[in-house]
Amino acid sequence: MPVDANAAIEVTCYNMVPPMARGYVKDMRVRWALEEIGLPYRERFVGGAGGTKSDDHIADQPFGQVPVYKEGGLTLFESGAILIHIGEKDERLLPRDAIERARAIGWMIAALNSIEPVMQSLMVIGFAGDADWVSDARTAFRPWAVQRMGQLADVLGEREWLEDRFTIGDLVMIDVLRAVRGQRALIDAHPNLIAYIERGTTRPAFKAAMEAQLAVFEAHEAATA
Amino acid sequence: MPVDANAAIEVTCYNMVPPMARGYVKDMRVRWALEEIGLPYRERFVGGAGGTKSDDHIADQPFGQVPVYKEGGLTLFESGAILIHIGEKDERLLPRDAIERARAIGWMIAALNSIEPVMQSLMVIGFAGDADWVSDARTAFRPWAVQRMGQLADVLGEREWLEDRFTIGDLVMIDVLRAVRGQRALIDAHPNLIAYIERGTTRPAFKAAMEAQLAVFEAHEAATA
Repeated sequence: MPVDANAAIEVTCYNMVPPMARGYVKDMRVRWALEEIGLPYRERFVGGAGGTKSDDHIADQPFGQVPVYKEGGLTLFESGAILIHIGEKDERLLPRDAIERARAIGWMIAALNSIEPVMQSLMVIGFAGDADWVSDARTAFRPWAVQRMGQLADVLGEREWLEDRFTIGDLVMIDVLRAVRGQRALIDAHPNLIAYIERGTTRPAFKAAMEAQLAVFEAHEAATA
Repeated sequence: MPVDANAAIEVTCYNMVPPMARGYVKDMRVRWALEEIGLPYRERFVGGAGGTKSDDHIADQPFGQVPVYKEGGLTLFESGAILIHIGEKDERLLPRDAIERARAIGWMIAALNSIEPVMQSLMVIGFAGDADWVSDARTAFRPWAVQRMGQLADVLGEREWLEDRFTIGDLVMIDVLRAVRGQRALIDAHPNLIAYIERGTTRPAFKAAMEAQLAVFEAHEAATA
């Protein structure tokens, strides 16, 4: 089991988030990758204004977010950069062949820069509930998301993964897609994307990562109850 | 001069874009990187519905965008992935030291996933002009952008680059920041960010990349006039 208080790798996580965010905080991506290759990590917790906004945390993560990854003299933030770093340790996550490697990184960055931002905009609009402007804003943003989902479904087609085998490109893409909640119709129009998410989230490493993230919040609730 | 019809590397670009997009199309990032290390590339042009939406182009770039990068057996899209691939050829763009390398990739991904999406949302809202919903939507999205710009200004401080020297992290961050037009107040509040953009965009390689991108549109206009 990768969570190990004596591990050389440290992953910084929130000790508590609102219920709707549980299982979706971005250290999931790092936990999942480390579970895939059985590499142990210790957890460090930040939480509340005194944690994420503290000078110490901002020095590690200028946007006051998680995860931060520490290993030896390296302090690294941005889950995408952390996954490339972890992927370079093990070709099960990132192929060593130069072409396959570049393609895997390409899909990961597609998830981070071409898919996630489009979905994030809809999520921000969703946070406004039924405010007057929401319907018009959704009309402006949604066609972009519909188009990207269609393009992604087309390129995936009936393949199992985005390239010949699972890589960090699939890991991040699936993590982005599964977070498209409240916009389910975007995904539901594409059975192959639903099956793709299912293939990713039934991997033992994903399940272990999920259990590990949820265990933190459960422990914190129990301790503060 | 890196643009060379006989070069081994091919970069796909639009042959025409609206005036406001000229100098801002994302092949700028790839041109700029190749100019920094003097690596020649040939241009391939796509344009109009017959180009960006053609089966051939979608096979290379599933979202119908540019740039696409081809070299030997590699076809790669997403400018961030292309920059890592180019950076690995030359340590002037991406350090070989493992820690410095990971940090440079971290800043590049911060630009792509933590800064650009926030600015892009405001740009989409801006496209709606003075529609009724625009003011409220801006009120919902803008604090997020203000916060991120402040955090970025804080972490840059008085340093010349985000790490000890220029890397692909600065290249992409500066390219993202200089595109924050129509939202100038976000940048103008931070003189150190203005100076940082200026340091990047006065590099000879940036200027050469800009000239090369603009030359394409000028040639197309001359040919179709």
